[in-house]
Amino acid sequence: MERILSIDATKYVGKLVKVCGWVNSRRDHGGIVFLDLRDRSGILQVVSPPNLVKDIKEEYVLEIEGEIKKRPIKMVNPELETGEIELKVQEIKILAKAKTLPFDLKDLKLSLPRLLDYRPLTLKNEKIKAIFKILEEVIFSFRRTMKDFGFFEFESPAIVPTTAEGGAEVFHIDYFNHDAYLSQSPQLYKQILIPAFERVFTVTHVYRAEPSVTTRHLTEYISLDIEMGFIESWEELMDICELLVKNLFTNVEKNCFKELKLYEAKVPKINSKIPRIKMREAQEIIFERTGIDHRKEIDLEPEDEREICQFSKEKYNSELIFITHYPTKKRPFYTYPDPKDPEYTLSFDLLCRGLEIVTGGQRIHEYEKLVKNIKKWGNKIKDFEFYLQTFKYGMPPEGGFALGAERIVKQILELGNVREATLFPRDMERIDQRLAILQSKKRKNKK
Amino acid sequence: MERILSIDATKYVGKLVKVCGWVNSRRDHGGIVFLDLRDRSGILQVVSPPNLVKDIKEEYVLEIEGEIKKRPIKMVNPELETGEIELKVQEIKILAKAKTLPFDLKDLKLSLPRLLDYRPLTLKNEKIKAIFKILEEVIFSFRRTMKDFGFFEFESPAIVPTTAEGGAEVFHIDYFNHDAYLSQSPQLYKQILIPAFERVFTVTHVYRAEPSVTTRHLTEYISLDIEMGFIESWEELMDICELLVKNLFTNVEKNCFKELKLYEAKVPKINSKIPRIKMREAQEIIFERTGIDHRKEIDLEPEDEREICQFSKEKYNSELIFITHYPTKKRPFYTYPDPKDPEYTLSFDLLCRGLEIVTGGQRIHEYEKLVKNIKKWGNKIKDFEFYLQTFKYGMPPEGGFALGAERIVKQILELGNVREATLFPRDMERIDQRLAILQSKKRKNKK
Repeated sequence: MERILSIDATKYVGKLVKVCGWVNSRRDHGGIVFLDLRDRSGILQVVSPPNLVKDIKEEYVLEIEGEIKKRPIKMVNPELETGEIELKVQEIKILAKAKTLPFDLKDLKLSLPRLLDYRPLTLKNEKIKAIFKILEEVIFSFRRTMKDFGFFEFESPAIVPTTAEGGAEVFHIDYFNHDAYLSQSPQLYKQILIPAFERVFTVTHVYRAEPSVTTRHLTEYISLDIEMGFIESWEELMDICELLVKNLFTNVEKNCFKELKLYEAKVPKINSKIPRIKMREAQEIIFERTGIDHRKEIDLEPEDEREICQFSKEKYNSELIFITHYPTKKRPFYTYPDPKDPEYTLSFDLLCRGLEIVTGGQRIHEYEKLVKNIKKWGNKIKDFEFYLQTFKYGMPPEGGFALGAERIVKQILELGNVREATLFPRDMERIDQRLAILQSKKRKNKK
Repeated sequence: MERILSIDATKYVGKLVKVCGWVNSRRDHGGIVFLDLRDRSGILQVVSPPNLVKDIKEEYVLEIEGEIKKRPIKMVNPELETGEIELKVQEIKILAKAKTLPFDLKDLKLSLPRLLDYRPLTLKNEKIKAIFKILEEVIFSFRRTMKDFGFFEFESPAIVPTTAEGGAEVFHIDYFNHDAYLSQSPQLYKQILIPAFERVFTVTHVYRAEPSVTTRHLTEYISLDIEMGFIESWEELMDICELLVKNLFTNVEKNCFKELKLYEAKVPKINSKIPRIKMREAQEIIFERTGIDHRKEIDLEPEDEREICQFSKEKYNSELIFITHYPTKKRPFYTYPDPKDPEYTLSFDLLCRGLEIVTGGQRIHEYEKLVKNIKKWGNKIKDFEFYLQTFKYGMPPEGGFALGAERIVKQILELGNVREATLFPRDMERIDQRLAILQSKKRKNKK
């Protein structure tokens, strides 16, 4: 007999079926035992005489054959999608046994570190699983939108020969006695592809050796990157970004209704158009609202980002806001300076509910200007020769941006920490498990 | 005026349009100049009086306004999709200048190393670009098929704490004074997800510190990975794999017609069903056909793979063949031994035109058996504690497989080297450019 999913069982009333899954819970009621069987589609109630299930415990993996029956009216469970039916066991097979879980899977009350140390187990929890269904939808929806816009999808390499974005936050790799690094961004590669494909995107992992542990940073995260040639103006990039983000939120709202409900979450509100203000204006507004004077700072602080989002929500009824014209000093060498004031750049961040979720801008496409900036930023031209070919042989005006996938999910669900929206988070204290644990293992192994 | 693509120009006869692109070629005919303008959609002939284009050279980036006209019958170019029309220039703007290319872009005759050193430029060539359109289609088609089959897509981490697949072919990362590695395969992570999602897939990069340069190996390549729980038998994996591969080839044939034609290539032939034979049987057949006796070898040699594919083509009219039951010793610790003969495994490779493009099999899902094997393979249990949680708390029978994306493209187009099917190939001698070049730069920089 072919297996059916529990969600489909409602169509089989009166029929014999086979289902497979995990024992989510077991309830003994004298002469009868109820098992909730969990599979990837949901939960199905199973009814059995005690003798058929005597050794069966929670998390055991079962294959069950039996008849689907309507439940008596008073036994209907409206909270369950299969709440009107149950399966009456005829035959049961144990596919795998399970130890007793070290916590209550149905009511998780673990600290974040323990939640992550137990990731393979906590993932079975419906609410945890929902996070990653939303992450999948965000990425899928990004991809579909960019394809619809006629962008070419490519795969960006992780092993790179230079530390393109600058800074010390880079992981070093031993590469056959040469120096190599983990890519901090697909920036150089997406630009290289413009003369061939004009409009490109990639879903890629990027790596930052963040030497601190915050609620917003990971050492490995998913970047949704786009780059496009022949832009008329850098504002076109924000237009595309706005369309894209609206699409993402609409799709999550539509396709992850059940998952959002588990968190009582709503996708961020956008009131027709996302406001756009300059960073210096934002600092003025924050000063006026709070009295805190950050008007001389060259970047927004996390609390500034929260405050300006609060302002946007109050004034424009928008939970998103573009901040533009970041100082040239704060941006990478390839960022286009504003011709009207070269101290500032044609760049933008998109903030959502107090957190940056997108960063982008126009790039320098003129060879000489780019060479000058590479040097000015303290880099060696020789390290960029491969990349510079692109600009020597005809590069149109272009720009792009990148979205942080996990951050988007964090902000949609209003999670406290970006790690919650990451299947297997990595930070300076963790790869799968806490490094302290790993380290102590290593010591034990050595003994 | 809004820009149109050259491919769409045929719809604008008699109308004023704006196009943008690169000068693919320039032909001066006395009182008139012809430019072939190349954009992402194709090539458009542009006609101009000499004075408007006097400084314009090949690879210059232009924005042109003008009128679309029908060409005189005798001037029609049947090789061009826009061969019946041309654009009569009214206004021309240079968006970027270009140096003279160091080779003929339209007739590339570069050695492979130079082709790759010049990747940012050679990518502009139509035939080179076609390779990556096919790669995009292979990956896209894989993703769509797996989604249609109800699989959950996830992102697998690259930074990992253990060398799961064993062997010395692993890159080491300096991770905040801890040891970490680049993932050789998403194997452990896709298994971990089975109890939550049952059926998963990922498009991921994997990293092998291959200490040799062959036509089949890269240090970073794209792996198309799937894993599924509740299999009835390990042959079900081959059934899914067969469906998937047929789908890929059908989609490439349908959606990359133009690209295949550039190579006069046909997708590999499958005669209804892909034959399945055991590795030992394959060695017998090879011995019978060639007299070369590899019957005691524990793996097929590259020449064996070519010979058995030749046999499959002759005998079964199939350019693909499954080889099954590889020796236990040759497979990783998680591979399921054949209950009938534990010296061999329930594993398979799929060969295509002489090269392995898929590898897979059933996995050990029983905790005790897995623990035993981890030790037997010389690994430490402590290093696998995170992974082992999955098996301690209920894992159904399961298995999966992985396809090498670049290899599939290589075999479809019958390219000589897998590097040709890789946008930015990495091997022990190359990251973007040849490492010898990088190294000499470093020496120069130090002086």
